[in-house]
Amino acid sequence: MFIKTLTSLGLALLAALAFNASAQAQDLTGKVTRTPTGYLMVLRNGDDVIAHIERLAVVEQIQSASIFGIGFMREATFGFYDFSRKVFDPKTFKDVELANLTGSIAWKEGKPSIHAHGIVTDGTFIGAGGHFLGMTVGTGSCEITVILHPHKLERFVDPSIGANVLGLHPGAK
Amino acid sequence: MFIKTLTSLGLALLAALAFNASAQAQDLTGKVTRTPTGYLMVLRNGDDVIAHIERLAVVEQIQSASIFGIGFMREATFGFYDFSRKVFDPKTFKDVELANLTGSIAWKEGKPSIHAHGIVTDGTFIGAGGHFLGMTVGTGSCEITVILHPHKLERFVDPSIGANVLGLHPGAK
Amino acid sequence: MFIKTLTSLGLALLAALAFNASAQAQDLTGKVTRTPTGYLMVLRNGDDVIAHIERLAVVEQIQSASIFGIGFMREATFGFYDFSRKVFDPKTFKDVELANLTGSIAWKEGKPSIHAHGIVTDGTFIGAGGHFLGMTVGTGSCEITVILHPHKLERFVDPSIGANVLGLHPGAK
Repeated sequence: MFIKTLTSLGLALLAALAFNASAQAQDLTGKVTRTPTGYLMVLRNGDDVIAHIERLAVVEQIQSASIFGIGFMREATFGFYDFSRKVFDPKTFKDVELANLTGSIAWKEGKPSIHAHGIVTDGTFIGAGGHFLGMTVGTGSCEITVILHPHKLERFVDPSIGANVLGLHPGAK
Repeated sequence: MFIKTLTSLGLALLAALAFNASAQAQDLTGKVTRTPTGYLMVLRNGDDVIAHIERLAVVEQIQSASIFGIGFMREATFGFYDFSRKVFDPKTFKDVELANLTGSIAWKEGKPSIHAHGIVTDGTFIGAGGHFLGMTVGTGSCEITVILHPHKLERFVDPSIGANVLGLHPGAK
Repeated sequence: MFIKTLTSLGLALLAALAFNASAQAQDLTGKVTRTPTGYLMVLRNGDDVIAHIERLAVVEQIQSASIFGIGFMREATFGFYDFSRKVFDPKTFKDVELANLTGSIAWKEGKPSIHAHGIVTDGTFIGAGGHFLGMTVGTGSCEITVILHPHKLERFVDPSIGANVLGLHPGAK
């Protein structure tokens, strides 16, 4: 029990460090402009999309937001949740158009929590996608529109489904 | 003629009652927050997505709006219109990620009229979708962003195509 | 060299004329309404979607914008870029639901530059799409939401990838 707690704590610390390292490594200079409804972000070849959105959330102290966008990805990884094994089965697509990305920015345990879904296509034009685990811009760009909301929103795990849910009110469960 | 009129009237009344029953059965408590541009709605396991959007339109007296969102659906039914038979050929997908939902809120014959398209994916990651006939949230959630417009907009049937069209001005045809 | 320059100039002039002809041919009467965040446009059977968005950009002097929408298309043509041959391999889909269109309005060389991605579906419900080369509304309609940004944004070709990128700041490269 003690060891398990220490291990969990260690993993949480490592995750926090990994988050900080990846999000703080992102330089937003020249990549974002303020708009009346939020922000417009343009990412370039090699940029980690989720890490840049996390960085934007931290730097601009975004309380919560809805996002949508398009682009061209060197790599896009989706995960389909296996409820029996409680893990995401991942699949990575390379050099694909991002036909659409839709999602939200919120917070969880003091860190930005990006929930993003999307669809990608390759030279066959067939669409594939779902829940994004990660993506990196390829030989093109990525245009993300952020629509700001003023409420600090937190995600929490709904124990009845074992999945993250966006809480709209303090103490949501 | 008289019987046909009575039958049509009866069907319209039944449809109105069905609408009222399903939309009024939806409880929006804790599911919606106001934003500078409209609303953010988070639905949960078992919620009927279209009925909740209709309920929001009625309760908040939404004149018209654009909507987009994501989620995980227990069931999502799309219809592809068969112009020769003048019916939607339906297909239902179960336990799927809602990669994207896009649509609009307007009114028709005194009731909210939700026009929603979308794409869903399962463990194969292949995208499927089109025009939504209905959907129910599964073991996940559904985040819908509503962008309000101030004009009361009505849908009408364009007789040249036999399909609903969103009218932007009174008397549009 | 001289001939090549003349030819390039000629092609540019032809392109400009073609743009002006198609965009000016579009009549926006009854097709657009102003909203607090931008515009809502409803196009009808036979309308060229990209040309109408270009026309809206010119008439309303849109500096830049994010767009999203749905519809039913008589024809929707996507292009997947072949980096070795430096051309888009095109594919056209007929009589399809537009499950989602997402993109942006900016400017390039004095003309509106519309960047649009999307997904379409037919009676099989399978999604296909990517980067739009063009589309024409079919026996249905097309609802486009425009979210305005105040900055005049220009696209430029990033020489390292040979593709258009949306510049957020003057002199972006």
